Parts: sequence; C-alpha cells; structure tokens
Amino acid sequence: MGDPAGIGPEITAQAWEYLHDKGIPFFLIGNLELARHYADQHHQPEPVGITSPEEVVSIFASHLPVLPLNLPAPVRAGKPDTANADTVIASIERATKLVMTGKVGAIVTNPIAKSVLYDAGFAHPGHTEFLGQLAASWEDWQHPRGPVMMLCGGGLRVALMTVHIPLKDVADSLDTKAIIHTAQVLDQALKRDFGIPHPRIALCGLNPHAGEDGTMGKEEISIINPAASALRAQGISITDAQPSDALFRKDARETYDAVLALYHDQGLIPVKTLDFHGGINTTLGLPFIRTSPDHGTGFAIAGKGSARPDSLIAALKAAALMSANRQSYDRA
Amino acid sequence: MGDPAGIGPEITAQAWEYLHDKGIPFFLIGNLELARHYADQHHQPEPVGITSPEEVVSIFASHLPVLPLNLPAPVRAGKPDTANADTVIASIERATKLVMTGKVGAIVTNPIAKSVLYDAGFAHPGHTEFLGQLAASWEDWQHPRGPVMMLCGGGLRVALMTVHIPLKDVADSLDTKAIIHTAQVLDQALKRDFGIPHPRIALCGLNPHAGEDGTMGKEEISIINPAASALRAQGISITDAQPSDALFRKDARETYDAVLALYHDQGLIPVKTLDFHGGINTTLGLPFIRTSPDHGTGFAIAGKGSARPDSLIAALKAAALMSANRQSYDRA
Repeated sequence: MGDPAGIGPEITAQAWEYLHDKGIPFFLIGNLELARHYADQHHQPEPVGITSPEEVVSIFASHLPVLPLNLPAPVRAGKPDTANADTVIASIERATKLVMTGKVGAIVTNPIAKSVLYDAGFAHPGHTEFLGQLAASWEDWQHPRGPVMMLCGGGLRVALMTVHIPLKDVADSLDTKAIIHTAQVLDQALKRDFGIPHPRIALCGLNPHAGEDGTMGKEEISIINPAASALRAQGISITDAQPSDALFRKDARETYDAVLALYHDQGLIPVKTLDFHGGINTTLGLPFIRTSPDHGTGFAIAGKGSARPDSLIAALKAAALMSANRQSYDRA
Repeated sequence: MGDPAGIGPEITAQAWEYLHDKGIPFFLIGNLELARHYADQHHQPEPVGITSPEEVVSIFASHLPVLPLNLPAPVRAGKPDTANADTVIASIERATKLVMTGKVGAIVTNPIAKSVLYDAGFAHPGHTEFLGQLAASWEDWQHPRGPVMMLCGGGLRVALMTVHIPLKDVADSLDTKAIIHTAQVLDQALKRDFGIPHPRIALCGLNPHAGEDGTMGKEEISIINPAASALRAQGISITDAQPSDALFRKDARETYDAVLALYHDQGLIPVKTLDFHGGINTTLGLPFIRTSPDHGTGFAIAGKGSARPDSLIAALKAAALMSANRQSYDRA
C-alpha cells in the first residue's frame, strides 16, 4: 500500500495496466475506494475487492484485485495524515504474514513516509529494518540472515554495508566481521534469488584509489581486505577492495555479478546515474522475497498524473523472478 | 612528456595521427628517439625536432614536432627509472614557462608516477599542486586562484572540494570559506574557459539524501548551505546541497553546467561510470590552461600497443577550446 497520500496508489493502477496481460499476477493490500478513484482516472476497469489471495489469478487479467483495508482519515493527495499511519503499518504486517505462510510468492512495498509513521510511534529506520524484525521474530532458518539492502538498476546489483548514517561515521562503522557476514548474505541471495550458480562479487574500497597501498587511508589494509581473504577461504568469489570510481565503468561491469559498496552514495550514485527511473530496491537475507520501487512517496506530484510507474513495474517483475528462482533453488 | 616508461609516448603518437589534420597543432616536450620509436611502430612519418614553438604550425600536419629533452637513463617500457625523474620534472617546468610567457596556448600533461618522482625528491602530491606552485611564484592576477581539480566526461563537469585524502577525513576538512572560494574559482573558469556566460552550479551534499534535514548528518546545515547562500548573495548561481545519488541522472544533468563535489569518489564515480575512456582532468584557477588525460601511466600495458589515446585526444581538444575561450573572454 505505502502512504496513501503519495504516488503509490496511482503507480499501482499504472503497473496493473502494464502487467495485466504479462503473466505476473499481483494484488494490492490497500484502500479499495482509493484504488477505484485512480483506476477511474486512468479509464481502467473497476478494481475488485477480494478476501483471499486465491482469488487473484482469475481476476487479475481483467481487474486489479484489492485486499481491502479501511482508512480512518480521508486521503488528500500530497497531504499525508498520521491518522492513517496504523493502516499503512498494518498493510506491511498483513503482507508479511501472507508471504511467511506461503499464501503469496513475494511482497512489493510502495513508498512510505518515515516521518509520518514516526509520529504514529513507528520505531524503525525504514521498511528494510521493520521487515527484518518481523521476519526475525517468526522464523528459524539456516541461511545467513539479513536484512541487507540491495539496489538493482542499469545492469548493476549493488548491496550496501551501511545505509542511512552520516558520511563521517562510515569509516568507524566498518568491521571485518560485518563485511564477512554481509558478503555471505549477498552470496547466498545471488545463488538462491538471482539464479547465479557461481556468483562473482566485487568489493568497493573506502578511500580514493582504494587507499593506494595505504597512502590515502588504511581501512582497505586493516579491515576490508582481511574480510575478502576470509571470504575467499570459505569459497566465496570476492575481490579485494577496488577503487570505486573505476569499478562501475562499462567493461568492469561485465566482470562481476554484484558489488558490495560500503556506503549509501557510493552504491547509489552509479545505479541512479545509469538508470534513474527503472532501479529497484530489494532486501536480502529475509525468509521471503521483498522488493520495492527505488523512490520516495512523491508527495509533490501525487494525484497530478505525472508519476512514473517504471520502478514499481521493475520491482514487481523482479519479485516474481526472484521468488521463482528461490523456489527452484530450494527444491534442488 | 609524462613518465617515459608509461604509455605517454605511445598515446602521443596515436593522438598526433588522429589530430594532425584537425587544426589542433601541438608538440611534444620529450625525448626525440623515443618519439621516433613509437612513430615507427605505428608506421607514422618520423617526428621532427624543433627549437621553438614557432616551428610547430608548419610541421604539424606532416610530422609530430618534438622539443627534445635528453634522458640520462635508457627507457624500458613498463619499468620506470628514477634516473629520468629530473627530466620528467624539467618537461613540466619547461611547458609552464612556455605557457606563462605566451609562447603556447595551453599545456597538456601526460601521466606521471608520483612514487618515482618522490624518490627523486619531488615534494608535491601531483601535477595539480606542482603547477599551482609554479604558477603562484610567477604571477600576480586578479582572478580567484586555484588549483582546483575538475574532471570532464560523459557530459559532466565535476570540480572537487577535496581530492586525495582518506574518506574519514573528508567531513572535518570542509569549511564554509573553502567552499565559497572553490565555487568562485569554478564559476570564473566556467565563464572564462568554458564560454558559459551565466554558469549554473549544482552543489553536492555530503550525507545520504543530503542529510535529510539534519537527520543523517549536520554538515549540510552547518557548513555547506551557508556557503551556497553566501555565493548566491554574490550573484553566483549555485544550489543548496543536493542528494548526490540523484544529481547525476540524465534529466538532472541538463539543469546545471557543472557540479561541485565534496570528495574524490563522489565526483569521479559518475564521470567514470558514464565515460571511462574519454574523460579528462583539468586544473582550474591557474594563469594558464592545463588539461591531462584522466588515467595513470599504464606501466602494465606500456609498449604493448594496447593503450587507448581517447583521453589524451580529448584533453588536447579541450585544451585548445579552453585556451581560445579564455583569450576571447579576456579580450571582451
């Protein structure tokens, strides 16, 4: 559902229009009246309320299926209302319950506004961490555990060691153990969810020129490369720290299946530079598949007909493919 | 000249071949025998020794002109020799003297190996700083003074606030005064050297999402945006700190003429991701035009015929254009 005052409901209607005949059935956990409003605006057939995911396949080709949630407050596009925050959170919990019990193959989350949810008592930095906690309290599995945030776009898959922290804290928050663990989660996800039997991971350096033998920073020598050595000893194919400015060039991109970046902008600059509209976000190391569009709620353009569904469509496609890959991997 | 054991001499021969009929005459300050060796390897006419830049125009269309320098030690491709370091440095000094006295329009520097020059007593972090010092001791001018490093490539112009320092030191090395000064140098260079009458500068944030109102880092509020306000009050068109991951996307790139990035990889990742082979480096705020290819000495591939001259050719073209722009600006 995401924030109902954002672009989520509108791009969901657009995504249904694009995908309804492409064999990737999905349904919305959200407000039925709002879904009908946007369908009407886009001259689409009226969305249909459902009571169970089992109804989706027969409806999807002709109507957007909606598992309905009531909203306490009226929705005004671009004006988020804390009164609706509990319903936004409930939609995430509902989706997680459905995917954890095998009723659906994956979940895709529309953008939320953290500050709106914070006002309602939500205590997580974002979807990624909330889902990590919901998953942790529900299951007991043998795989390296996330959550690890990954961005995909422009032919790149980039996982992040650190995400929403000040740049000055990045160096101190890195340690060899954490890099080893994150790379294990990434390696496992590339095998299970991306169908790559022998993944090749490229590891970013922290400093200019990856420190140039310690002359421009020591973390490559003291923290990062020891993690890479330990990982290779476990059979994981990962490079030593690479100069991150040269790592995303066209010919280098063909030498790896994913990059492990050390901080937010190091990973997101290349993805968004190459593909701003079609990039997606996915959470690795959960007991289920979760993807999301790689943009915010878009309050400034909500309800104006100018939102682009590219990223949500890419997120829905990726979720379907990753879910199929994981099922096939786990059967084998 | 650059390091004679690197790819410099070879890409110079290739650049001459490409440019000899394109109206951008240049000459090499370097070793004549070495130039003849690479010309021979590429089946080119024999380079011709000159004693003054005035001879260049009549020779350039048919032969590479070379202002010859003797090398004390024999050159072995890929094996730099400290014995030749003084000659490498002398070629830079010679070029600077020629451009400062108006004998040539611009200088282009082939890559040097800092560690080789350090062994010979060279005490500068690189070309940029050395040229800054040579220029400072020779002149007295009214323009905002560099050196400021700028990379151009993939349709981007990116100037850097900090360059070869560890990432953990970046935040502490920023201050409002330095940002103001660097942006003034950049603004002036865009007008004088790039021929842009009303330059628009985009300013990068330091933290994820440019700090998101101080929730992920405070430098945008305390240091960076105050500099931008002060600059706008001086009539310079510069944005407040922007989220750097979104700033280099295609449609954003059309909204500015240059970006001021705060650290090495923030600026170099987008340039090299979009255009690895054709990017160039230029030093702003000097009393003369200086460009260089945006790559190193390439010792590993020197003498093997696989070096690509794209970046040197782009650097030569840019130097010619920037020099013409500055002359035209200063006459007006």
